[in-house]
Amino acid sequence: MGESSGTGFVAGLEDVVAAETRLSGVDGEAGELTIAGFSVEELAGRASFEETVYLLWHDVLPGSGQLADFREELAGRRELPPATLDLLRAVASEKVTVMDALRIAAGTVSPGTDEEEALALVARLPTIVAAYSRMLEGEESVVPDPELGHAANYLYMLTGEVPGTEFTRALDTYLTTVSDHGMNASTFAARVIVATRSDFVSAVVGAIGALKGSLHGGAPGPALDVVFEIGDASRAETYLREKLGRGERLMGFGHRIYRVRDPRADVLAAAAERLYTTDGDRELYELALDVEQTALTLLAEHKPGRNLQTNVEFYTALLLHGLGLPAQLFTPTFAAGRVAGWTAQCFEQRALDRLIRPQSVYVGSRDGSWVPLEER
Amino acid sequence: MGESSGTGFVAGLEDVVAAETRLSGVDGEAGELTIAGFSVEELAGRASFEETVYLLWHDVLPGSGQLADFREELAGRRELPPATLDLLRAVASEKVTVMDALRIAAGTVSPGTDEEEALALVARLPTIVAAYSRMLEGEESVVPDPELGHAANYLYMLTGEVPGTEFTRALDTYLTTVSDHGMNASTFAARVIVATRSDFVSAVVGAIGALKGSLHGGAPGPALDVVFEIGDASRAETYLREKLGRGERLMGFGHRIYRVRDPRADVLAAAAERLYTTDGDRELYELALDVEQTALTLLAEHKPGRNLQTNVEFYTALLLHGLGLPAQLFTPTFAAGRVAGWTAQCFEQRALDRLIRPQSVYVGSRDGSWVPLEER
Repeated sequence: MGESSGTGFVAGLEDVVAAETRLSGVDGEAGELTIAGFSVEELAGRASFEETVYLLWHDVLPGSGQLADFREELAGRRELPPATLDLLRAVASEKVTVMDALRIAAGTVSPGTDEEEALALVARLPTIVAAYSRMLEGEESVVPDPELGHAANYLYMLTGEVPGTEFTRALDTYLTTVSDHGMNASTFAARVIVATRSDFVSAVVGAIGALKGSLHGGAPGPALDVVFEIGDASRAETYLREKLGRGERLMGFGHRIYRVRDPRADVLAAAAERLYTTDGDRELYELALDVEQTALTLLAEHKPGRNLQTNVEFYTALLLHGLGLPAQLFTPTFAAGRVAGWTAQCFEQRALDRLIRPQSVYVGSRDGSWVPLEER
Repeated sequence: MGESSGTGFVAGLEDVVAAETRLSGVDGEAGELTIAGFSVEELAGRASFEETVYLLWHDVLPGSGQLADFREELAGRRELPPATLDLLRAVASEKVTVMDALRIAAGTVSPGTDEEEALALVARLPTIVAAYSRMLEGEESVVPDPELGHAANYLYMLTGEVPGTEFTRALDTYLTTVSDHGMNASTFAARVIVATRSDFVSAVVGAIGALKGSLHGGAPGPALDVVFEIGDASRAETYLREKLGRGERLMGFGHRIYRVRDPRADVLAAAAERLYTTDGDRELYELALDVEQTALTLLAEHKPGRNLQTNVEFYTALLLHGLGLPAQLFTPTFAAGRVAGWTAQCFEQRALDRLIRPQSVYVGSRDGSWVPLEER
């Protein structure tokens, strides 16, 4: 609950309903996430990312012909214009973070109709992330392959190799799982911006800017860092007891909204299980599960009644690591999934066509008298 | 009043208090605007823009030494790096709007501390606007002159000529008048973004994106277009009667919040009077005043009880036109003034350190069952 002061100000707007949406519903008490009519468990793992975007935009799953057309629309918009590539090279020389580079380059998407901008944004975010992360490593960017689906092409642009089916499926699952999540801060920023009748590019650039904040885009990297630091299951209990004893927070556990287990964690856990069974560092996977179990046991003991559960960040880190992504690409890849929701919420806000403009209360002094510079 | 639905959703958040601020207070009923302790009438016309920014950031007017240091801090950050100039040239070749170019180029300000970013943003917005508008005309950009004050240098970069005292004073007055204005949509976007612990550059880029929407940055251009179209005072009544008869809105009159005269209109009216007395197209000025009087008379007759008054956009257009600015630079110049408030509000939000994350209510269907592609 947000505390209210005498002015009516409720810090954080926690209890304020800022939108009605058919895009996603979060029930933190029940641990349920509905995405455009489907539970996240029903949708993720089955839908390709293109199907998820289509579902969010059109409120119905595409038929075969519609899906083929939609894939083509997106695939045709993946390539970055030379000026954007030049810009990315310039910021790479300053070692700007991937999120900053993503915000900067996303802003260069050419103005168009809402739908054109939305398609270009969804199509291009992975290209920007992949191209920029390769530039940071001093490598040439990989030209997108229009024959590949959205998720497969993202992995291809990152590595230069066409990924296997399980890798593609795991990334589709991840992108769908994080595609929309109620009125989070970045989605809200996008709605506030587009509600002035501004454009989708401006809204998504604002959303990327909000997502990069540590209170939002989260810290999926540190969740796995703990696993790496522990290194061996036998050390887990001692390490975690010491950490909790020092009053430190365990990254990867607990969520602001979910009071029970985050349903996205279950979906990503299943995807990680499948991925690490097929391919990847099985040893690390087993270790991560051991660390998770130990952490949950210790948290129940250390913070009784809090019911702290594994959150989406823990399994995000595990899954994306299994896909070969370095930690600095976790939040940018989150953005590449959430852009589905940002654009869908912009369409919804556009249809509402209503400025979002709350009040502020002035608590400063009044009636100041000007003092000339020489008398100050 | 916003209508509330059964879900508790209040469209537009009109009655929600989203912040307590000591930066500015708007009393729409009384027609009063307080900026950091001073009425806008007390402050604007006396304060240089640098003094206004300092006042907003530090809640006190600077002493001589402080002001000299602050001017130097800003002046030293005006120049655009080569990569940003290249980027502007690239977007100029696509004839992107000045507001889009401003959003894109502002995003390239290098990461730093909050204060470094705030200084760079305030310092650079005019450089971007001036350089880009000259590029659109196929002219070379003018290198900023660190010896000139902020307002004088802006006019210098636009025209290549050092402006006279009255021109500088008029621009200082304008920039101060629009420096902050409660919880408008762009300021709110900036706060939502920075509240995730994101950076000031991201927040200001989001704010520029919100400002460019037609429901916010407004349309100061069309307010003067009517005056140009009328051309001669004798035609004003017939022209305006016909326009109102067709049910068209008169740009430049009426404001969402102010129920009486917008106090900023008075301040800018006085500045315009001074400017056009010294220099400029006196004939146009007289015509504009005639059109204003006729419009007010007809509005009182046509919409009795609404008390529609001349708004800030009318005098903004008149003043900025008098300064030689084309209409496409009106909203970007508004941004160059409002960045004072955006950054000040970001400092305030940073000190509060509280995520802004309202709720949404899910109104879509639930429990959808997945249908495989071949069965759709």
